[in-house]
Amino acid sequence: MSQPPIVFRRARREDVPAIVALLEDDAITVSRYRADDSPADYEQAFDAIDRDPRNWLVVAEEAGAIIGTLQITYIPSLSRRASERAQIESVRIRSDLRSRGLGRQMMEWAIERAKERGCRLVQLTTDKRRTDAHRFYAKMGFESTHEGMKLRIPT
Amino acid sequence: MSQPPIVFRRARREDVPAIVALLEDDAITVSRYRADDSPADYEQAFDAIDRDPRNWLVVAEEAGAIIGTLQITYIPSLSRRASERAQIESVRIRSDLRSRGLGRQMMEWAIERAKERGCRLVQLTTDKRRTDAHRFYAKMGFESTHEGMKLRIPT
Repeated sequence: MSQPPIVFRRARREDVPAIVALLEDDAITVSRYRADDSPADYEQAFDAIDRDPRNWLVVAEEAGAIIGTLQITYIPSLSRRASERAQIESVRIRSDLRSRGLGRQMMEWAIERAKERGCRLVQLTTDKRRTDAHRFYAKMGFESTHEGMKLRIPT
Repeated sequence: MSQPPIVFRRARREDVPAIVALLEDDAITVSRYRADDSPADYEQAFDAIDRDPRNWLVVAEEAGAIIGTLQITYIPSLSRRASERAQIESVRIRSDLRSRGLGRQMMEWAIERAKERGCRLVQLTTDKRRTDAHRFYAKMGFESTHEGMKLRIPT
C-alpha cells in the first residue's frame, strides 16, 4: 500500500477551521474571504449546513488530518422524472497533496453517495480559468454542456 | 397598461400539471421526460420541494393561468463569508408568450427574493445551445465565468 487509508465522512463542527483553511488555500478563491470574517460566522454557517438533510459538507481525513473537502447539495426537482440531482461545490484537496489521485477518490465517493440516493445527475460548475479541473472532471465522465453564469449582489 | 398584472408566488400542489407542461414545452428538455412518468411521481417531488425551506418552486400567474416557472434553491455555504447562494433552475416562460419581457420580470422577482434573504450570489447554468438565454442573462448582469459540467447516472 503506497497510501494510508483515507476516510471520507460528513464534517463535524471541530473540522470547520481546517475546512476554511482548505477553501482559502487557492489562488482563485482567496479573494472571496475577508479579514473581518469571524469564526462565529463560519460556525453558524456550519450549523445551517449540518441541520439540512439535503446538504452534506464532506471531509477527507488521513491520519487525523483534514486533507480535502467538498459539499454535496441534493436538489429536489420536477425535472428528470422527479428525481433529486446532486450538486457538488467547493471541492478542495490540500495543495501539497494534489496530483496523487485523492481528488478522484473523493469525487468517486461523492458520486457513489448520489447513486445510493437515487440521483440521475451529478452537476458542478468550475471556474473557466481552472483548465486542469475541466480535464480532471472530463476524465471522470462529466460533460461541459452548460454555461455557468453568476450574478454578484453588492453588499 | 399594455400588460395585465402578473403575480409571482410559490407554487401550490394544484399547479403541478401546469408546471410540468411548461417544463416539457421546450425543444431541449423534452427528451428528459418519459411517457411512463406518473402524476404521483410529480406530486411526491412537489411535496419534497414544498416542505424544504431552502427550495422554492415559483410560478408566474396571469389572469388565472400559469405562464412561467422557475425554482430557487438556497445553498448554505462556508464560502463567501458564510452566506447562502441562490441557485435558479428550470426557468420557463410559456412558448407563445416569450419575448414580452415576462422572463426578465420573473428573474428580477427571484433576484429580489435572494437579496432579501441576504444572498451575495445568484447562480444558474444554461445549456450551451441556448445562446438567446445567454444573451438574456448577460443583459441582466450575469457573467459566464464557469463551465457547467454534468454527469448522467444511468438507471
